[in-house]
Amino acid sequence: MTKPMGPIPAGFAADGDGMLLIGGKRADALAAQAGDTPLFVYYLGLVERQIVRFRAAVPGVDLHYAIKANSYLPLLKHVASRVDGLDVASGGELRLALEAGADAAHISFAGPGKRDAELEQAIAAGATLNCESEGEAERALAIGERLGLQPRIAVRVNPDFEIKGSGMRMGGGAKPFGVDAARVPALVRRLVEAGADWRGFHIFAGSQALAADALIEAQLATVALAAELAEAAGEEPPLVNLGGGFGIPYFGGEQPLAVEAVGAALAESLSNRAQVLGQTRFAIELGRWLVGEAGVYLTRIIDRKESHGKTFLVTDGGMQHQLAASGNFGQVVRRNYPVAIAGRFGAAPEEEVTIVGCLCTPLDRLADDVAMPRAEVGDLVAVFLAGAYGLSASPQAFLAQHPATEMVVGGD
Amino acid sequence: MTKPMGPIPAGFAADGDGMLLIGGKRADALAAQAGDTPLFVYYLGLVERQIVRFRAAVPGVDLHYAIKANSYLPLLKHVASRVDGLDVASGGELRLALEAGADAAHISFAGPGKRDAELEQAIAAGATLNCESEGEAERALAIGERLGLQPRIAVRVNPDFEIKGSGMRMGGGAKPFGVDAARVPALVRRLVEAGADWRGFHIFAGSQALAADALIEAQLATVALAAELAEAAGEEPPLVNLGGGFGIPYFGGEQPLAVEAVGAALAESLSNRAQVLGQTRFAIELGRWLVGEAGVYLTRIIDRKESHGKTFLVTDGGMQHQLAASGNFGQVVRRNYPVAIAGRFGAAPEEEVTIVGCLCTPLDRLADDVAMPRAEVGDLVAVFLAGAYGLSASPQAFLAQHPATEMVVGGD
Repeated sequence: MTKPMGPIPAGFAADGDGMLLIGGKRADALAAQAGDTPLFVYYLGLVERQIVRFRAAVPGVDLHYAIKANSYLPLLKHVASRVDGLDVASGGELRLALEAGADAAHISFAGPGKRDAELEQAIAAGATLNCESEGEAERALAIGERLGLQPRIAVRVNPDFEIKGSGMRMGGGAKPFGVDAARVPALVRRLVEAGADWRGFHIFAGSQALAADALIEAQLATVALAAELAEAAGEEPPLVNLGGGFGIPYFGGEQPLAVEAVGAALAESLSNRAQVLGQTRFAIELGRWLVGEAGVYLTRIIDRKESHGKTFLVTDGGMQHQLAASGNFGQVVRRNYPVAIAGRFGAAPEEEVTIVGCLCTPLDRLADDVAMPRAEVGDLVAVFLAGAYGLSASPQAFLAQHPATEMVVGGD
Repeated sequence: MTKPMGPIPAGFAADGDGMLLIGGKRADALAAQAGDTPLFVYYLGLVERQIVRFRAAVPGVDLHYAIKANSYLPLLKHVASRVDGLDVASGGELRLALEAGADAAHISFAGPGKRDAELEQAIAAGATLNCESEGEAERALAIGERLGLQPRIAVRVNPDFEIKGSGMRMGGGAKPFGVDAARVPALVRRLVEAGADWRGFHIFAGSQALAADALIEAQLATVALAAELAEAAGEEPPLVNLGGGFGIPYFGGEQPLAVEAVGAALAESLSNRAQVLGQTRFAIELGRWLVGEAGVYLTRIIDRKESHGKTFLVTDGGMQHQLAASGNFGQVVRRNYPVAIAGRFGAAPEEEVTIVGCLCTPLDRLADDVAMPRAEVGDLVAVFLAGAYGLSASPQAFLAQHPATEMVVGGD
């Protein structure tokens, strides 16, 4: 039985031959230009579309990019020049952010397990540490003292709520992330008294949310929590990072997030905010929503085979580059990402196929029982939604397979 | 509530200080020797124990190593010198196998998506291709002709059965692996008539099986199927690779496979085998069972924190090196691998903790709600069963985190 796929993002079309165009360039020409498959193509025009949409929908709120979603340097350089801050999650990502041209004053570093060397690296660079525990705060203060530098420190808060129905819960109850809200005021006072440059709060309640109502509710709760914590600490936070959570539809039946509704509700909430937040800037930190739809993974069909009445298209790619599309990255049930035969983009389906990668494991599936136009050996398969948590989130060394390449294409 | 962990493999002990010994060496000394954590230590003595156990239990049957389980070169060199053949799954693994000193005549190459360049590489080297489809067979024959070399080709069979209850089903029904049994005799005749050096069959019915009965049943069916296919093809197979499937216990309540029972049943089956298999050699291909228990992942505690009454130990490692232990490698439900506080190995539990990695994602858990002796920042956590599908099967570039190192320790 044919299984559903997720929606192909708007912004992709075919030329007169039926070949998928990515940023106006033919998929087969891009593969030829790369010299090999598999290939990730990131179309900056779609990243730009999201940035413009965010700016229009959420005016007056800073836009941060969580580079964990995709830190491929040419993409990162572009995004860094268009957003208000970069959020990093390791010393390695901090180096990438600086290499991409970001100003350290607009970089913040979150992550529950920062090594001393990473704290030192961030303090020396002048980046903001989103502090995850009292222990980490003390380590950062000691390192700042040793270096003779005033550390810039925000406090990551573990809120008592989470975004309802979000793909990944990062707040609510016992968590390894942040400091329980009840202990935050004391930590803020400690940081201020110790002479740190206290930068405010980082409150991340979830990710990959598609329901505007749930996101609005979490954002309002976040603003209220920030006010309560600031009052209790007796300090006005320079910045409140409201977290992210903006999702994109991956699977059949999912609908895009109504960002405009989220922005309108947030604007109203901020216009009525408590006095203690009067001078505060607010930021939203997005990764997947900014870059996820911009990426296409192109992999070539190596074999077309039948087994017990089923047709398998075997490609030169697979889970070693696209772990999430294979269903092995936090998913409980495997569902199909949107895929297409690149050379017959938009053509009517003619057969049901299962598309697999080249690995010798049954986990390596890119699409199960999907309806496709006929495809032959040598044709390209396009897997969409490959812009976030793709190559860097996959076991690239597995089975010592052929590496994937990456490229960006411009706005038109 | 405390959750169970899997069993710590036999062969690990503590010294007088309570420090975990791996191959007679202190875990903390190994970390110091590596210069950094996280660290994978592979104890060759335990690999050797498995080889010896296999030889005793399954005499007269070749032992192959499936290098996908772990192709770290110092380990691979050791194993290559002690087994009868290496099974590879890519051109990259073929290069590693040759670099490890294996004779190409004892290397076989399986995998549903072999590129032309990989077929050429294997044929030129003299390795055996485990052919996965008629299309691949024709490509291999054409390449052999072009190179003026006789390709060595076995046929991978998609059997109509699978190992019952095995962790991964690789046979039975429609599969991307191998050629449906009904079409195999015609393909064998085609290969022989085309002048290929036909090497026999590769029949892989599943992996990670712990029930001897189920494995015995599958092996008997495999021998019978090989006989039936050989009769139908009118050709005597030089080698029948019976696949692998020997599992190791990972989780609470699992029992080790009774290898001796498997060997005894197989010996009986082979002593009564059909005449067409009279001159045939048989091989069993093992990966995880040979090396899985020999590996320990050592990661250092960076933070110890409380959240809503729970204690979290945050380490400098995580799912970027140990995807399977985090529960994101084919598992439907996350369960705990065996873990220990290396410096208090064997000590009585004193508290319930959750051990996480340093990544900024709730997926990054190494052990949930486990009972441990008290551990402090700076202590080493040992995650066992890290010898197979560890580093190479994990998203090492994720979040641009600190890399892991690997080392082997000898038998004593």
